[in-house]
Amino acid sequence: MPEPIAFLGNLDAEEEADFLAALAHAMPEETVRPFRTLSEAERTGIRVAIVANPDPAEVALLPNLAWIQSLWAGVERLVRDLGDDGVPIVRLIDPELARTMAEAVLAWTYYLQRDMPAYRRQQEAATWRQIAYRPPGEVTVGLLGLGALGSAAADRLVQAGFRVAAWSRSPKQMPAAVAGFSGPEGLAGLLGVSDIVVCLLPLTGETRGLLEAGRLCAMKSGAGLINFGRGPIVATDALLAALDAGRLSHAVLDVFEVEPLPEDSPLWRHPGVTVLPHISGPTTPASAAAVVAGNLRAYRASGRIPAAVDVARGY
Amino acid sequence: MPEPIAFLGNLDAEEEADFLAALAHAMPEETVRPFRTLSEAERTGIRVAIVANPDPAEVALLPNLAWIQSLWAGVERLVRDLGDDGVPIVRLIDPELARTMAEAVLAWTYYLQRDMPAYRRQQEAATWRQIAYRPPGEVTVGLLGLGALGSAAADRLVQAGFRVAAWSRSPKQMPAAVAGFSGPEGLAGLLGVSDIVVCLLPLTGETRGLLEAGRLCAMKSGAGLINFGRGPIVATDALLAALDAGRLSHAVLDVFEVEPLPEDSPLWRHPGVTVLPHISGPTTPASAAAVVAGNLRAYRASGRIPAAVDVARGY
Repeated sequence: MPEPIAFLGNLDAEEEADFLAALAHAMPEETVRPFRTLSEAERTGIRVAIVANPDPAEVALLPNLAWIQSLWAGVERLVRDLGDDGVPIVRLIDPELARTMAEAVLAWTYYLQRDMPAYRRQQEAATWRQIAYRPPGEVTVGLLGLGALGSAAADRLVQAGFRVAAWSRSPKQMPAAVAGFSGPEGLAGLLGVSDIVVCLLPLTGETRGLLEAGRLCAMKSGAGLINFGRGPIVATDALLAALDAGRLSHAVLDVFEVEPLPEDSPLWRHPGVTVLPHISGPTTPASAAAVVAGNLRAYRASGRIPAAVDVARGY
Repeated sequence: MPEPIAFLGNLDAEEEADFLAALAHAMPEETVRPFRTLSEAERTGIRVAIVANPDPAEVALLPNLAWIQSLWAGVERLVRDLGDDGVPIVRLIDPELARTMAEAVLAWTYYLQRDMPAYRRQQEAATWRQIAYRPPGEVTVGLLGLGALGSAAADRLVQAGFRVAAWSRSPKQMPAAVAGFSGPEGLAGLLGVSDIVVCLLPLTGETRGLLEAGRLCAMKSGAGLINFGRGPIVATDALLAALDAGRLSHAVLDVFEVEPLPEDSPLWRHPGVTVLPHISGPTTPASAAAVVAGNLRAYRASGRIPAAVDVARGY
């Protein structure tokens, strides 16, 4: 029997129970113990921690950690809180998350392409008016970020007949039929050709505030924005100004500077904003547990730690 | 030079000009003349009329018509007004229409599966609450109608991972992975298993009022309804009662008993109803003209009239 795995996080009781059950089902050969149930002696033996927004002070009480497995794909908080400790952080790369996120990108791309927000506003005024249909072959969707999620989204959009462009920090091999952009100039290029911009970027020192006033101004007139990445990548005030000026037509926001979005945020009440409560790419306990089990089995078999986050890069 | 083709309809000037230009482009060998420009002598020579909601009195002034080409897929009005005259009516079977309609079915299926109406209501109350995600593999979409449009929609939904059921009046060969239902009992069966019911039926004597109170009651509790067929197929009062009672969760209606939907209709203001101004399957002049040109060329070459509507059946 290997040493137990510690489980640390700020989940509510029901969520924690769901994840523990899914982990027990996916890897019956392991014992996963909530941090609060570990004695001081047991804590010393812990080599691996599975975490979901953990308290850094608790992580510090595990002196012999070999690596940390995040249950989320986004690790900016872990990198900030624990990046300097030198313990490798492994983020969740869940193929089911790539599927649900790509589905969300397609669903909310249709939401904008098919003018659902505009028809909603017309309904509020009992106005019957047909808006000219734009076939997907005449709509360019620009993806910011081309990791596992961006690539899956690009494939779905191409299949659906959209013109697809994608931007990444450094040049990447593009999926077939995707126009590639990279670097700071490439970003302006992508923003200038996209009717709908979809942000799937991780939050890093470089992406914080990336879509500020100047970059939002570089977007096509009347374009829509979907932010499924992280809230602080988009400058909220600049976004609201662009919507109010009619330069952008609509924004779908699933992520925010502060979550839950505070009740007094103007975003809730802006007619050009669709607020979603961080639901674009739901992590299901079953799919997350399957990925974690795969990582742990490889580690037990070979002693090798799964590919970890580059702390300097931030993801 | 063959005899000219007559063009009859109630389009506005801009729409008529768009269609005439598209027809001229698609079949430069033909001359298409608006009805009002034809002399009495010329009217006698007309063999083919292209129509878009024509005035039956004008059609009656073309004594030697061999067939009528509709610019729309729905022909219930033509059949009612002209069905007894014995002139074959050819409806538009446009592959581009099948594509746009299948896209609309997928787009508004996502709208319901991804809980967009519920998140909209939450936004109005500044409520941050994640609704449990239902993957498409756990959502059954039931299609009513399995002609060209229904088959194309079934394919898109299967590709997107939904469970798909389909009902048709008479038994049909089903596309792969689609559960087939037919006849009156089959209808109850489909309604009982579908989380989202999508109506793509033509309006006929048999489909008028098909979804009345009893059939709406046979739907799964909490199911959603999308009507992209014809308004009178769904009994509005019964639908509102089912929504008010919480038996159905939401209805997306693109077609109505009277169009434009009258300003005083309660549908405009019902929180459980999304009103669309008949935009699910837009006919574009270019794609419609290409289909009409194909029909006319076959007719000129062989003298055979394209497959016409069965007036008794109504489509």
